[in-house]
Amino acid sequence: MTFKHITSRDNSLFKQLKKLADNTRERRKNNETLLDGVHLLQAYIEHFGLPKLLITAEGESTYEVGALLQELSDVPTVMFTTLMFAELSPVATPTGILALVDIPSLPMPEQADFVLMLEDIQDPGNLGSMLRSAAAAGVEGVYLSMGCTDAWSPKALRGGQGAQFVLPIVERADLVEVTQAFGGQTLATTLAGTSLYGMDLQQPTAFVIGNEGAGLSEALITAASQQVSIPMIGQVESLNAAAATAVCLFERSRQKAASTRGSD
Amino acid sequence: MTFKHITSRDNSLFKQLKKLADNTRERRKNNETLLDGVHLLQAYIEHFGLPKLLITAEGESTYEVGALLQELSDVPTVMFTTLMFAELSPVATPTGILALVDIPSLPMPEQADFVLMLEDIQDPGNLGSMLRSAAAAGVEGVYLSMGCTDAWSPKALRGGQGAQFVLPIVERADLVEVTQAFGGQTLATTLAGTSLYGMDLQQPTAFVIGNEGAGLSEALITAASQQVSIPMIGQVESLNAAAATAVCLFERSRQKAASTRGSD
Repeated sequence: MTFKHITSRDNSLFKQLKKLADNTRERRKNNETLLDGVHLLQAYIEHFGLPKLLITAEGESTYEVGALLQELSDVPTVMFTTLMFAELSPVATPTGILALVDIPSLPMPEQADFVLMLEDIQDPGNLGSMLRSAAAAGVEGVYLSMGCTDAWSPKALRGGQGAQFVLPIVERADLVEVTQAFGGQTLATTLAGTSLYGMDLQQPTAFVIGNEGAGLSEALITAASQQVSIPMIGQVESLNAAAATAVCLFERSRQKAASTRGSD
Repeated sequence: MTFKHITSRDNSLFKQLKKLADNTRERRKNNETLLDGVHLLQAYIEHFGLPKLLITAEGESTYEVGALLQELSDVPTVMFTTLMFAELSPVATPTGILALVDIPSLPMPEQADFVLMLEDIQDPGNLGSMLRSAAAAGVEGVYLSMGCTDAWSPKALRGGQGAQFVLPIVERADLVEVTQAFGGQTLATTLAGTSLYGMDLQQPTAFVIGNEGAGLSEALITAASQQVSIPMIGQVESLNAAAATAVCLFERSRQKAASTRGSD
């Protein structure tokens, strides 16, 4: 294997990749993003085939990274200095491999039974965790409001651990419209709703979850068919938005599993 | 109100506070930490009284911060330059108020019915979210392994949103010993256990949860009475550790609530 070895920050490819790493608008304009690490890259390849470009760093690499570079020797590869590589990576301890890929687009099912809508989630790690929970709980599609952080940023991808590759995601959606058009119950999670555990979640269900600090907008609460809450028995009265999402989504899995078992 | 106004990074108080902000060992040595923002500070005051020192920044402050400074005018207060203040704050958009406090210590109940043990959690935001979920779900005590990130770091405090002020927490615990000594079932969460939903969680229960990447150590899995898993029906087979913790802890709340209702 011979890599193109780039050591200048003035290199135009480096500058372009840096823009992609840092800038939502650039990612959207080009429909491209960067994947960080062996795990994400393998998940991508499994679903969509080879990346457009591999990016690696000078110096020692792990056995895992070396093996993957060898396996993907047909893919154009560049090598940057350690410091330049670190500038492109979303993590404090870079994994040693990045890949440039097209942002995939999975078709939203025409009639989804289990949907998640997220309003104005700010933290990319939180958003990634929510998408990961959604993919694990069997959500069929996710809608993100205009004010949500980019689902395809390196940090959100890292939090999602591959969820973005299996989950149809519509960004910049008008959630009030989506709520009104949904053919089932739409449950707005607030601190003043009916107990989640009293709801029949086996019917077609959309959970509507709000911003980490501000909660859901009045417009969305009004558009939803009902408000639900997670009963809290402790001295703290709210959950991290990603934790609350996991509890809601998995309560549906639990009810489904219980009804399949024919008992509860 | 007149504040001591400090503009030099060489100021010894600034240097000491910077050490506390950045350094676990320093926090442990002095048994002090920094709280960031009005919400955390109010929660602290509610439980433990006044902070030792207030820290604010030059320039505009929010109405909330101004009102709190006025209310706490008996507490010594210093004002730093905006840049110096930002160096002490764990967040990208500083809130405008920090407080120096003693790290509180809440007594662990002698016989706890609901316990959480966390092994080697690395991410302070994740740890904070787990503590917040624990406090909301009625956990009575939390044990953290030697390898866990500091529960009293500014980032973990921010993630906990006050959970650290209501939850007895033992840091640097020998979790194998704690598991063996616990007077109830100890459930190790893994990807290869019995379904969480089939467990009777109304008896005294400790959940044992592992590292974000590596999962639980063999020693702890062996020490626990049983392995449990959250059944996943989607295409992604694991959850963020904080999301998994929330699902496990709230399944116990659900079972308790269901038995109180006398149905399910």
